[in-house]
Amino acid sequence: MIRFNDKDYNSSAEIFFDIFDDRLKLIIIWYLKNEKLRFKELFEYLQPITKKTLTIKLKELESLNLINREVFAEVPPRVEYSLSEYGEDLKPIIDEILVWSQKYVGKFGTKI
Amino acid sequence: MIRFNDKDYNSSAEIFFDIFDDRLKLIIIWYLKNEKLRFKELFEYLQPITKKTLTIKLKELESLNLINREVFAEVPPRVEYSLSEYGEDLKPIIDEILVWSQKYVGKFGTKI
Repeated sequence: MIRFNDKDYNSSAEIFFDIFDDRLKLIIIWYLKNEKLRFKELFEYLQPITKKTLTIKLKELESLNLINREVFAEVPPRVEYSLSEYGEDLKPIIDEILVWSQKYVGKFGTKI
Repeated sequence: MIRFNDKDYNSSAEIFFDIFDDRLKLIIIWYLKNEKLRFKELFEYLQPITKKTLTIKLKELESLNLINREVFAEVPPRVEYSLSEYGEDLKPIIDEILVWSQKYVGKFGTKI
């Protein structure tokens, strides 16, 4: 058994599935894989989403040590999000999702 | 734009995130990655889950061409589920999830 965030799990993979219990957190990682982004940019990429939901998801990712939040003392203050070391480690998963998606869509999707 | 199952998407990766909108379908793929399984076996592995939910998820995966359903004419009838060709293609994603989970849990989890 493994204890993580006050919960017990049978396997480490269960922890992945629990962290990414909805697709939003993994999609945020997806957008951050190549660049730092500001709240407003993520908010636009992730439409439809509310500011409240995005704030909650970003706080969750930060508390899970998967993203970094940097605040710049400007007027108005600039806040940038980027992948942490353990967030960067998610990139091979993202890469394989892209490989699979392209093959699957090539077979079952239609370009319009 | 890409059309898939009567919906329009901006990218092929969006289709992955839409298919695996909750973790259950990917966890079913996870259990099928090394062996064929009967309904009853999946039902036990996926506890807590209802038979109705498992049936819905298996039908979705079958209609997405990700798993095969084989019925054997026995008494009682035996039904086995296995990965299809496009389901097999998801294995590298599963493998990378395992790599990430083990590293992440090694850092932030505690063996008990």
